[in-house]
Amino acid sequence: MKLTDEQLETFDREGYLFLPSVFSAEEMAIINAEVPKIHALQREEVWREADGTTPRTAFASHTYNEVMRRVTYHPRLVEPVMQILDGPVYVHQHKVNAKAAFDGAVWQWHQDFGTWHRDDEMPEPRAMNIALFLDDVTEFNGPLWIIPRSHKAGVLAAGHDLATTSYPLWTLDRETVREMADAYGIVAPKGRSGSVLMFHSNLVHASSPNIGPWDRNIVYLSLCHVDNHIRKFKRPEWIAHRDFTPIVPLPDNCILTIEEQTEAAE
Amino acid sequence: MKLTDEQLETFDREGYLFLPSVFSAEEMAIINAEVPKIHALQREEVWREADGTTPRTAFASHTYNEVMRRVTYHPRLVEPVMQILDGPVYVHQHKVNAKAAFDGAVWQWHQDFGTWHRDDEMPEPRAMNIALFLDDVTEFNGPLWIIPRSHKAGVLAAGHDLATTSYPLWTLDRETVREMADAYGIVAPKGRSGSVLMFHSNLVHASSPNIGPWDRNIVYLSLCHVDNHIRKFKRPEWIAHRDFTPIVPLPDNCILTIEEQTEAAE
Repeated sequence: MKLTDEQLETFDREGYLFLPSVFSAEEMAIINAEVPKIHALQREEVWREADGTTPRTAFASHTYNEVMRRVTYHPRLVEPVMQILDGPVYVHQHKVNAKAAFDGAVWQWHQDFGTWHRDDEMPEPRAMNIALFLDDVTEFNGPLWIIPRSHKAGVLAAGHDLATTSYPLWTLDRETVREMADAYGIVAPKGRSGSVLMFHSNLVHASSPNIGPWDRNIVYLSLCHVDNHIRKFKRPEWIAHRDFTPIVPLPDNCILTIEEQTEAAE
Repeated sequence: MKLTDEQLETFDREGYLFLPSVFSAEEMAIINAEVPKIHALQREEVWREADGTTPRTAFASHTYNEVMRRVTYHPRLVEPVMQILDGPVYVHQHKVNAKAAFDGAVWQWHQDFGTWHRDDEMPEPRAMNIALFLDDVTEFNGPLWIIPRSHKAGVLAAGHDLATTSYPLWTLDRETVREMADAYGIVAPKGRSGSVLMFHSNLVHASSPNIGPWDRNIVYLSLCHVDNHIRKFKRPEWIAHRDFTPIVPLPDNCILTIEEQTEAAE
């Protein structure tokens, strides 16, 4: 899977690229079967909403779940990022965000690189998110909202919000968000389970609470060019990884072959 | 303004009717100039969000604001409701809901008649809301979400939620909402300032918090057939009015003529 020149130009200009139906329904069924198991785990990497029970996000499940490991090393996710970042990448962060029906809380307006730079001393925005929609994403389950072209502004001033949700975040002030949204608008890419959204690490984004009756699970891979690895090890290693080994993408059919390979190994 | 037979059938089947651009930009400018003034008033009818400062809703402003009085008695809002309810109507409730940028909080899943019946002893669902969009309503400023056809289920079991927001509401349980949404889907009518949404008083609806940078002010008229007036006077009269005088609609140009008439009266 190679991005075209037109896609690369779009990404550079708009700061994001939406790729519908990158994974098949058969692949998604295998991946989705793992999600409730991961979110049910009582381990420190699985964060709850402020209510103490609803899953909010599970970090680093690729380190202990074989399906998530294969998702993380999947060529359809890793190769487009290697192409844009122009070189080998490592896994900086891996999350399965839940945004649970009725209870999933807000993600405030922020830039990812702002957090990576301030908290982890990542030198440059040579890192980015690629998100895999596990559920269909609609306007009714808290889709990601992004401000196109906002990545060109560089790292914006931010404050460390420790109060709004269970997850600390460097968030942007309202005047900045309003000015940018007035200038560039807001978009919310939507699509079927198996669709992929990649976005620049300086792109301004947020997502609404989910008041609807349908879950919205998404895998977020944050991949970083190996030369651009983090310098400060303040956050737990399962939030900001310290293993900078370049990813070697797995074969394209690695999700579908998991069952036979797992059986063969038993 | 007469609803067609097709519109009446749609309303009966779906439980709502969306009418784009019922009021002109010129009319909306006159109406919208009043909204910040009303929301800034320090009076008991103007409710704040849980933060104590952001306006949430202003009740009964038609009783002291001449523009809002004319909106409330406007033939383009009153006559379609008289047509559906088949007779004279009075104002049961009047609200200017703010849903302010960044701070506007959720309206939980509910039916309006559930509240009117339980709190005010309104006998039958021969009453309904007609909403006038003051701002453009988009997917990014907390639009109303409705479950089409849910009005056919009658009054559903509900619990009195006194905790989630600053406004007490009889809210529906999650299983009921999920079942209905799975069966009928969810829609969020969107449109320009001046558009109108009418919906059955048993239609299940909610609206998301507004995390976006744009306000979403809406006038809600709750009109009730005069024979169906409330029997219990528990809530303040500016929340559930006790004057059951039938509305006599004003002339169609009553918004545009307000300035000359006000000047003439001075």
